[in-house]
Parts: sequence; structure tokens; C-alpha cells
Amino acid sequence: MSEDRIGDIGEFGLIRRITHDFIYRPELVRLGTGDDGGVYRIPEGFDEVISTDTMVEGLHFTKETMGPEDVGYHLAASNFSDMAAMGADAHGFVLSIALPNDLPVSWVESLYDGIRLCCRKYRVNLLGGDVTGSPKGIILTGTVLGMVPEGKMVPRSGAKVGDLVFVTETIGDSAAGLYALLHGMEKNWPFLVKRHRRPEPQIEKGILLRKAGAHSLNDISDGLSRELNEIALASQVEIEIEPALIPLSEETKALAAKEKVNPLSWAFNGGEDYELTGTISPESFDTIERKDGITVIGRVTGKGHGVYLKENGSRRLLEIHGYDHFVK
Amino acid sequence: MSEDRIGDIGEFGLIRRITHDFIYRPELVRLGTGDDGGVYRIPEGFDEVISTDTMVEGLHFTKETMGPEDVGYHLAASNFSDMAAMGADAHGFVLSIALPNDLPVSWVESLYDGIRLCCRKYRVNLLGGDVTGSPKGIILTGTVLGMVPEGKMVPRSGAKVGDLVFVTETIGDSAAGLYALLHGMEKNWPFLVKRHRRPEPQIEKGILLRKAGAHSLNDISDGLSRELNEIALASQVEIEIEPALIPLSEETKALAAKEKVNPLSWAFNGGEDYELTGTISPESFDTIERKDGITVIGRVTGKGHGVYLKENGSRRLLEIHGYDHFVK
Repeated sequence: MSEDRIGDIGEFGLIRRITHDFIYRPELVRLGTGDDGGVYRIPEGFDEVISTDTMVEGLHFTKETMGPEDVGYHLAASNFSDMAAMGADAHGFVLSIALPNDLPVSWVESLYDGIRLCCRKYRVNLLGGDVTGSPKGIILTGTVLGMVPEGKMVPRSGAKVGDLVFVTETIGDSAAGLYALLHGMEKNWPFLVKRHRRPEPQIEKGILLRKAGAHSLNDISDGLSRELNEIALASQVEIEIEPALIPLSEETKALAAKEKVNPLSWAFNGGEDYELTGTISPESFDTIERKDGITVIGRVTGKGHGVYLKENGSRRLLEIHGYDHFVK
Repeated sequence: MSEDRIGDIGEFGLIRRITHDFIYRPELVRLGTGDDGGVYRIPEGFDEVISTDTMVEGLHFTKETMGPEDVGYHLAASNFSDMAAMGADAHGFVLSIALPNDLPVSWVESLYDGIRLCCRKYRVNLLGGDVTGSPKGIILTGTVLGMVPEGKMVPRSGAKVGDLVFVTETIGDSAAGLYALLHGMEKNWPFLVKRHRRPEPQIEKGILLRKAGAHSLNDISDGLSRELNEIALASQVEIEIEPALIPLSEETKALAAKEKVNPLSWAFNGGEDYELTGTISPESFDTIERKDGITVIGRVTGKGHGVYLKENGSRRLLEIHGYDHFVK
């Protein structure tokens, strides 16, 4: 039995197949999908946040590294993560997908299953979308809406001298998982592969850190080296990191040891962890009751610029080796 | 002198080149681009609207039919038009662009010039974006934010029996302009070519019609036949159109006569006019003082479904021949 391709059922047939189970926070929706725009409302006293993030087949994923449900989950999570990085809560999502004509309809249905999984988990409404053809490969753009109490967003420009620098959970797992996938070791490293395919946006921790008074916040989408440098540049401060303090998972350490790779290169340059990094005063940090999953890795040492690694009594500049989509 | 390509300056170099002059309604912005999300606020008493629209090279435009500034203007206008179609005002815009490595940087700068032109004209803030590579062709996704007084959005599902059916301005010009472009007659039909390349979102008319009490509204992105059928289906009504009443520009009529084409096929099936169509009670229509650019073309004749053309005493079903991105 041959499988339905998109070209067989057309744009409007495809839309009919995927448009169901879109609302996970009904109190904010006035009109869902199916019209020229989705209509929603926000309670009083909130600012609103918007961000957009794209995944391109061949650049961000291949059919070998991720199934369609993974791609959907990852796309939603990477977008929601930008809300976490502002200390905001994600509540709305729209999608635009450009697809080759010969793609099986079931691929797109599974994509939406993954998106729905993530939307349900974080209570985010699907408010609309657009479907078009693509001359080559699958290109998926998500745009996320968030809300944060008025004036309380946490920018990347707020780091202050004396702040502690923190990260959430473990760093480098996604790059380690990708390494395992690309070297045919998928079955031996399920935790790392899952961390690559299905990252979790750290919305709860972002809100917790915002409430505790964090001065700056970034999500780790392009590697810790780039994210820390962005905070230093935007805040005009100098940051000092102790590499030994960077939290690595047991699996990342084990794979690195087996493959004779420095696991810190995955943490600094790998990206796609979607954990948070940022800065907070020591006094504010002390007020956090549940610190599990939040690790101090360094300090804001002065006004200035640049990120330095402090190791064995010496200090060296941490250059940006994060991912660039054009320069290889 | 060789021209800079995107691959020469990289993702972050490109972002630096295009990120300027983004704010055209400063009173709504708390934090512009450059962080994980753009932060904005809306006055009390408004619902919010979101929509997303994509343009794909080879499907929606080619380098022969549109220059980069046209593409930018068109992308913004087609997005803003979805706000007009809800009776809303557009105020915010984010963009995600997937670009081949060898695209000249100047192309992207001109693209943003076109986007800025449209944003300035309609007072829409650029609140963020994403730049990635593309395996083939240029793929541009815009997401627009709008605001409409609480509960006052105009859906496509509100048409009532007895309503008048209207359109704004002239219909079919964009398809006629594309015809001229594809047949090497660009220089002779500047008005039509402009209507294709740089459509104008009918935000003012959408607001005027909403205030007058319009029951339903759609923008004409996929041809009048599809838009009217969508209103009929969503509202569960039967619509009757008098083709002779459909407003055509002198230029569209002249090109059609010269080429022996029925200009109504451009109006019904061409799309991308980004004019509005909808329904309103005769009493409400009478209250509109300035009716220029709003033309009655038919009536909602009963409960039911389908759109019918009434001509020379006979009546026939208007089938959907609007554009589908997959089925040719």
C-alpha cells in the first residue's frame, strides 16, 4: 500500500489532518486557528515577550539524527526556551512549515504529535500556522509568545560586578548525544541521545531565578562560550569561570573518556542544551531554597569585557566557538 | 570588486548589518531586538491577534519577478494584511530568514529596506528574528502581532443572511501584474506590476469596516473564489455574487482585453491582492460615510453553503480555484 504524500492531498487537505488538539491553556484564547489570525488575551499586569526560531533539515537535524516527533518536540522546546531565558512563561505558539512535495503525510502528523507533546507539557496554545512548499528539505519556523510580570523580564544586559555566574542542570549533553548519533553509538547512550533530541525548556527555573532576583539570563542554544560572552558584552562586565565547576553528566563524562574527547568542548562549543546561564548576587542566590539543578560556575569580576577561564592558578580568554550557520 | 556573500561575514556579522531602525511605535516597546525575546506591552481593553506567513523563492517570487526590496515589502504587507482581515491594527513583527550561503549581503540589506518601508508606513515594530542557512532558495517567515478592542475581532464565521458582500479597491491586479511580468511586458504595466510586488494591507479599511459593524472579513490572499467560499463555509451560509459588480482596474481590463483573457479569472483565482472581502448588514453599510474603495458585489442569500454567480438570469456554483502550494 503506497503512503500518502503531501502532493496527493494538497495544502488544505494537510491542514485538515494536523489541525486538532491545539489548545492547552483555554483561559487565554478568544479564537483559535482557522481564521486569518489567532486571538488571545493576557491578564493585566504582564509584559509580553516574542521570539522566533527555525530548524532546517541538514543543518539542525537530519532524518538519521531525529524522527519527526523529535523534530516537533525540539522545535517547540527551543522556542519555549527563549521565554525561559527572559524569566517569562510561554503561552502561545505559531508555526510555519515549508515542506517538499514528496514528504509523507505521516511525517507531518508525527511532527505535530511531537509539538503537541511539548505544548501540553508546558501549557502552550497553538494559535495558528502556515504551510507552504519547499524547493529542498524541510524548514520549520516557530514563533512563541510569553508573559512576564510588568517590568520584571531578565535581560542578558543586567549582570553586575560581584554576581555569581550559574548554569542549570548539566551542560554538553546535547553535543555528546549528537556525537553518539553521528558515530553509530545511539543504542549505548540513550540519555545523551534524548538530551539532544528532546531538550526541555527550563521555564520553571527561569521563573524561580527571576523571582530570586537574577540580574541576567540566557539560554544555552549556541554553546556556553557564546552565551557567556553575550552576557559579558551586553552587560559590559568581565566574567571569570572555573571550568572544574561546570556540571557534566556521568554519561557525558563516560562517553568523553571512551572517545578521548575533552567533555568541556561539548559544554563550551556544542550548543542546543537549552539550559540556562546567568548571573545573580550572592545575597539573592542565598534566598533560593531549592538549589538543586542550579550550579555556580564563576563570578562577575569587574567592569570590562570578555570571559576568562581560571584553572590551576592561570587565567585565559574563553573565545567564542559557538555554532555559526554560515561560517564553517 | 567582489561583493560580500553571507558566507563571508557569517550569521552574527549579518545580524549586525541588518539590525537598525526597527522601532516605529516606541510606546509599545519595553525591550527591542538583541536579547532572547522582544518585550512589548498593549494598552488595557484590547485583545491580541497573531498570524504567520511565509514566502518561498520559486513559489511566491523569483529573482525575475521581484527585487529584494519588493520581497521585503510584500512579506510584511502579506502578514499585516491578516491583521486587517480581523479588523485589527498591526503593531509588531518578527522575521525568520533561511538563506543560501552564497547570497550577497546586499540582497539581505535591501530585503530589510523593504520590510522597514512597510513597517514605517503602518507603524509596526520589528521585535526580533532568526537567521539560518538554507539548502536551496530563500525562505522567509514573518509573524505579525495585532491588537483589536476586546471582543471586537471580525471573524470569517459571522456572515448573516441578508448581509451585503463587499470587496475593497480593485481585484485581480496582482495576478494581472504577475502575468505582465511573466510575459515580458513589465514596462508597459507599471501599476499592475506594483500591485503585484508591493501590495498594501488594508488596515484602515479593516478598522473602518469593523467599527461600522461588519459581520465577517477575510483578506484576499488566495483568490476571491477561495476567500468567499471560506466565509460561506465558516458562516454556514449561501452567498450570491454578481460578477459584473466586481471592481476591476482600467489597467487590468486593458491587459485582459489585449491578451484575450477573462479578467475575472484573475480576480477569482489569482490571489495576492491583499484586499478585503466580507459581509455587513445593509443598515450598517449605510452608516459608512466614506464608501470610496468599498464595493458591494453580492448578498448572503440564505443559510446553507456555497458561493453562486448570478449572471444573465442564471446561477452557477463558484468552485474554488485558488492557489494550492502542493497540488498543481
